[in-house]
Amino acid sequence: MKPGPTAQEVARLAKVSQSAVSRTFTPGASVSEDTRNRVMIAAKTLGYRPNAMARSLITGRSRIVALVMSYLENQFYPLVIEKLSQKLQKQGYHVLMFISDGDETDGVLDEILQYQIDGVVMASAMLSPHLARQCADVGVPVVLFNRVPDISAFARHSTSSVTCNNHRGGEMVAELLLERGHRRIAFLAGLEKSSTNLERERGFNDALAQAGAAVYRRAVGHYSFERAQEAARALFAGPGERPDAVFVANDHMAIAVMDVLRQELGLRVPQDVSVVGFDDVPQAAWGAYRLTTVVQSVEAMVEATVELLHEQMREDARPRNVVIPCRVVERDSVRAAGAPAPAPKPPPKPRAARRGAASRPGA
Amino acid sequence: MKPGPTAQEVARLAKVSQSAVSRTFTPGASVSEDTRNRVMIAAKTLGYRPNAMARSLITGRSRIVALVMSYLENQFYPLVIEKLSQKLQKQGYHVLMFISDGDETDGVLDEILQYQIDGVVMASAMLSPHLARQCADVGVPVVLFNRVPDISAFARHSTSSVTCNNHRGGEMVAELLLERGHRRIAFLAGLEKSSTNLERERGFNDALAQAGAAVYRRAVGHYSFERAQEAARALFAGPGERPDAVFVANDHMAIAVMDVLRQELGLRVPQDVSVVGFDDVPQAAWGAYRLTTVVQSVEAMVEATVELLHEQMREDARPRNVVIPCRVVERDSVRAAGAPAPAPKPPPKPRAARRGAASRPGA
Repeated sequence: MKPGPTAQEVARLAKVSQSAVSRTFTPGASVSEDTRNRVMIAAKTLGYRPNAMARSLITGRSRIVALVMSYLENQFYPLVIEKLSQKLQKQGYHVLMFISDGDETDGVLDEILQYQIDGVVMASAMLSPHLARQCADVGVPVVLFNRVPDISAFARHSTSSVTCNNHRGGEMVAELLLERGHRRIAFLAGLEKSSTNLERERGFNDALAQAGAAVYRRAVGHYSFERAQEAARALFAGPGERPDAVFVANDHMAIAVMDVLRQELGLRVPQDVSVVGFDDVPQAAWGAYRLTTVVQSVEAMVEATVELLHEQMREDARPRNVVIPCRVVERDSVRAAGAPAPAPKPPPKPRAARRGAASRPGA
Repeated sequence: MKPGPTAQEVARLAKVSQSAVSRTFTPGASVSEDTRNRVMIAAKTLGYRPNAMARSLITGRSRIVALVMSYLENQFYPLVIEKLSQKLQKQGYHVLMFISDGDETDGVLDEILQYQIDGVVMASAMLSPHLARQCADVGVPVVLFNRVPDISAFARHSTSSVTCNNHRGGEMVAELLLERGHRRIAFLAGLEKSSTNLERERGFNDALAQAGAAVYRRAVGHYSFERAQEAARALFAGPGERPDAVFVANDHMAIAVMDVLRQELGLRVPQDVSVVGFDDVPQAAWGAYRLTTVVQSVEAMVEATVELLHEQMREDARPRNVVIPCRVVERDSVRAAGAPAPAPKPPPKPRAARRGAASRPGA
């Protein structure tokens, strides 16, 4: 950027001190109404803009929050970017995006710390204990979004987190499917080491055990669309009776599973198989899927995240883990209450997708 | 952020000059291998990080590119964020996200310019001639993504752009539908003033005219899922024969249209109505939609955008408009070649969506 008009020139034109100019452009600083007006008029006339970089060196605050992500394919995360950016912008903050390749998060975070940022939100990426310590050392608050800190004691004591009540969510799915008379309930996992998956699966299994039941079959989709499809094929291959319901660890994968069940295996949802997801991404409500799922409110999670960031920016703050309640939203992918269990059928032969044939309307 | 170890301390530990430390952390600056090693070891030992903010004040380059968006609901744009961030990160740049409310873009851009950024990419948001002039004045290159500059001469001469060949894309859709024997082809527009819509609709109408045909009905969806559904209901309401095909200005809306056609109006796609979208977002390939559409390669557009940014950062550069070719990808939502035209039917009565009933498998 070329150098523009300086604060000195503005001060001269407005007939005020340079410090008055600086205070006018520092949010929260005290300056009289009259001085402010003169400065703003002069600034506009000259085309002056305060230098946020310079100000950050002086104040130690850049008003920039880094957002680290690695998985935008799952429609949950673009929503997070949007809501978080909007909320922070209203408060005069800006979001510096970092897309991590999963393994490279440490390298990414290292770069982030060069920018004198005010806070870090980690979504869909993990923070190593080493980096957690470095952030704590330089006083940069870290909030984990949709995951809890690593087992390591240091990370637990230095990073905050916001999640929904994944364990309760998993319980609610098991309770719903049992209530509807399901007896062969499968589970399709996400990334097995992620806290979201661990918690959801644990809640699910705990509730099944409470009812004297257990998971019927299990496969792993790694939070990937394609791998969830492979996992679905494995879950529904013979021999033995096929599952009559499947809890899929997130909506993104649940949609992939519904495609396999209906397009490839010729099964009907929910008559032959009930399907439940998790997240309530916008696509879960699309007419061709109408997926029953567990709602994680992005709005509530983002509110809590921003609050936590501000809280953690204070010297005396201690990290906290915030848990947002979740609830089931029922659409059309689970057998209705009172519907008869379907007569047992042999596993259908897989059919290749036929091009050019009708997409049948759902109801 | 608390102040950390200084460059001075690193220089002392490494037994080199402070300027050698500075050069070690300046990409492209000349420094001997031995000096670099000593500096890096000392830096690691002390936990030193160069201050990117300070460096930017000195060099005039922050290595930050601003990305302005306003519409993440359309799955095309999260892809753009991801690819653009990854590409720029590889080159040592970072992306500062700004979500604009559509009307507030000027205010947003004003803030951006406080950050001494190296460039601006505007996607799904327009740049006023006033702001275009300001960016040009301070030497900040602006690249419009997926739109062309305003008619105003100044904007045209100072901003670059990357689009796909929207006009040719619109032509290809008309050609495909005519070739398949369609005679009552409707058009569902996006935001009427956007260049994407203007170009796609113009190409579409031009190709129809070439064949001695014309659009049968037209409605406006404003690039919104809900408004596209309202527009679809209007397009397919009686009296008169209903359209036998519809070109929808983007995939996001086309999916909304398919939901109305199949779930509400009981029509089959493609037997009763062919549907074509534009963009080729990942959801267009989902089994329950299998949408025929026009591919805009995000990868190619992002490549071109980054190249343009670098080019425009040079003093002598003149703005350019890059046009990327597009092509049709055929899935299952258009009547197959050689399929007979369906017998004319009266417009179906709308059916309320039945809860709990089967989602029929597609083929």
